[in-house]
Amino acid sequence: MRKVYLDHAATTPVHPKVLEAMMPYFSASFGNPSNLHDIGREAKNAVEEARAKTAALIGAKPEEIFFTSSGAESNNFALKGLAQANSQKGRHIIVSQIEHFSVLHPAKTLEKSGFAVTYLKTDKQGLVDPNDVAKAITKDTVLVSVMHANNEIGTIEPIEEISKITREKGVLLHTDAVATTGWVPVNVGALGVDALSLAGHQFYGPKGAAALYVRKGVRIKPQLEGGVQEDGRRAGTENVPALVGLGKAAELAQAEVQNRMAYLAPLRDRLQKGLQDRIDHLVINGHPARRLPHNLNLSMWYVEGESMLLFLNMEGISVSSGSACTSRSLKASHVLTCIGTDAAVANGTLLMTLGMGNTAEDIDYVIEKLPPIVQRLREMSPLYEDMIKKEKVR
Amino acid sequence: MRKVYLDHAATTPVHPKVLEAMMPYFSASFGNPSNLHDIGREAKNAVEEARAKTAALIGAKPEEIFFTSSGAESNNFALKGLAQANSQKGRHIIVSQIEHFSVLHPAKTLEKSGFAVTYLKTDKQGLVDPNDVAKAITKDTVLVSVMHANNEIGTIEPIEEISKITREKGVLLHTDAVATTGWVPVNVGALGVDALSLAGHQFYGPKGAAALYVRKGVRIKPQLEGGVQEDGRRAGTENVPALVGLGKAAELAQAEVQNRMAYLAPLRDRLQKGLQDRIDHLVINGHPARRLPHNLNLSMWYVEGESMLLFLNMEGISVSSGSACTSRSLKASHVLTCIGTDAAVANGTLLMTLGMGNTAEDIDYVIEKLPPIVQRLREMSPLYEDMIKKEKVR
Repeated sequence: MRKVYLDHAATTPVHPKVLEAMMPYFSASFGNPSNLHDIGREAKNAVEEARAKTAALIGAKPEEIFFTSSGAESNNFALKGLAQANSQKGRHIIVSQIEHFSVLHPAKTLEKSGFAVTYLKTDKQGLVDPNDVAKAITKDTVLVSVMHANNEIGTIEPIEEISKITREKGVLLHTDAVATTGWVPVNVGALGVDALSLAGHQFYGPKGAAALYVRKGVRIKPQLEGGVQEDGRRAGTENVPALVGLGKAAELAQAEVQNRMAYLAPLRDRLQKGLQDRIDHLVINGHPARRLPHNLNLSMWYVEGESMLLFLNMEGISVSSGSACTSRSLKASHVLTCIGTDAAVANGTLLMTLGMGNTAEDIDYVIEKLPPIVQRLREMSPLYEDMIKKEKVR
Repeated sequence: MRKVYLDHAATTPVHPKVLEAMMPYFSASFGNPSNLHDIGREAKNAVEEARAKTAALIGAKPEEIFFTSSGAESNNFALKGLAQANSQKGRHIIVSQIEHFSVLHPAKTLEKSGFAVTYLKTDKQGLVDPNDVAKAITKDTVLVSVMHANNEIGTIEPIEEISKITREKGVLLHTDAVATTGWVPVNVGALGVDALSLAGHQFYGPKGAAALYVRKGVRIKPQLEGGVQEDGRRAGTENVPALVGLGKAAELAQAEVQNRMAYLAPLRDRLQKGLQDRIDHLVINGHPARRLPHNLNLSMWYVEGESMLLFLNMEGISVSSGSACTSRSLKASHVLTCIGTDAAVANGTLLMTLGMGNTAEDIDYVIEKLPPIVQRLREMSPLYEDMIKKEKVR
């Protein structure tokens, strides 16, 4: 059976060149970078090389990169660390309602500790309006956090416009670029951000290696305390092989990002058109143009996402019914709720995210397999039956 | 040149069987455990198997194991998470002065947030007196944290006696077992603890995989927020290959721990005696009997630790001048300060920690190489010259 993995937003396989780069650091060069002997220095040099490569990918300086263990940790670090370190200026932060929970939950925790939080709405395509950011900023505002692109619907936010406002008003801007790094160009200078989260396993690097960019001169309070690692900002023995892998993945991404976009967007469009042509009552979520090149998020009436997912799985096709981080919670996506998707139709959502291993044949296979699954499931739905009857009457 | 790695307390190489177990999870079975399709389930099953093996090593239930990215993270999670979740009972915690900084720094942070903290002294061999714990407990005490064994001087603390007291008084007990797990038997039931930290790379597992045991029914506040992973206690995509490696390392440790102790203690004793016989003005730090089997921490008068380390490095011998986590900070060890070591002699400290790859020949090589290095360095020390003159006068 053909195997088609369309869940690259959940995680990617480690690129063979990335794994090759990592291998020496498990056994031969296994040192602790904090040690002063040769085995330690070798590890230290490897980590610093990885830092330089990660920095280069996003146009940062190596000393502005703080390694963490996951995108979630980077987001937690950014929200709590930046808010706490700058609270003498004020105790108000602004986030969008479609942020990842690793931004929203720390925001809630800050709220409990005395911060005021403004949760910005988006439009129906998931765009944050920069004017809303401007209006929400008060003299107490210390931090704005708006993601670079949403991990579910793929909408790319107007960070460049938002950063013009935050800079003018002297407010810090963090962006969660976990979904975008490696898939579209990400440059901290062009974006104008003060902090940015990225995660290796989202772009062919290994799990367990991520980073938070913090612009030089910006203060951040360590959350993981008790070690000299990461310039005293984040304790814990460095995960050397994984960080080396992140560095290599960053190097590959820098070289290939234009090719990736050029390859993936037409393939995604082929998938979108193929499904739109064959499935009625289908809605494409997110912005039609400002969208990640490999993202396709669609909602179908009268059918349940999990059921489609499981039937596709039986055909060798791996997709998601929403964000991987919440899929087991079985709640309606807060992102779809925010963009105004009806709860009934949100329930019939599939998230398909393509990768460089997918071919046109893979896409055609999905276009062939999904429509009959949807049809079969709908035939079991009383709501669908009612709807068909009504249409016939008309 | 012979290569002798005597820095296993800093980190260990990944065991070949551990690496073999990890390999499929980088590329073939690369899924995100949160996903419901086969590739996700495969990863989820691997993580749960690793959890069961990690639990088995310490006599815990799988659902009592919360994976983290490092021993430092486990310690941060334990201190802040347990104190915060139980603060309605009181706001006093007790730690020993020789704890790792990943316990001490969170304790300081809790202090700033309104907790009272008692820092217990130890005796000259690094032992915490259980009576001191009993005396320090007040009606406001919620948590005691005393490490299972100290990572620098190897002293094994009387956790079983301390836990009798904490249980009787209804106070939670956390122990940092990062230095002990895999080297001596660690059993949460026998120890009587409510929480315990361990880290894979300390016992032939990979970096980036660690765990916090939390006894069933004990409340802990998540520190890394925003995901359903680890039963909602710790967000972030699971580092599947590393966790699989931790599980395998736990399995190996469970099978081999008795052999490890039987092999390492005599080898360590041979090293200790060889150096004591050949170097004068040498002090062995830590408890003579209640000590980790692979630990040798020694201080020499009139000589500088870093210099010895660098000369040994030139002979292919890797040792540490103290804890890896602080070695780059160049401060005197807080552990040696606590046990009353004179600052001048603390300066001449070497930490040697053996591993299963070390042979008797390796040990004899170190016994041959270190004494002339010490002699050469001392000959350059004016203090040593004075001392020799005085001894001759006597």
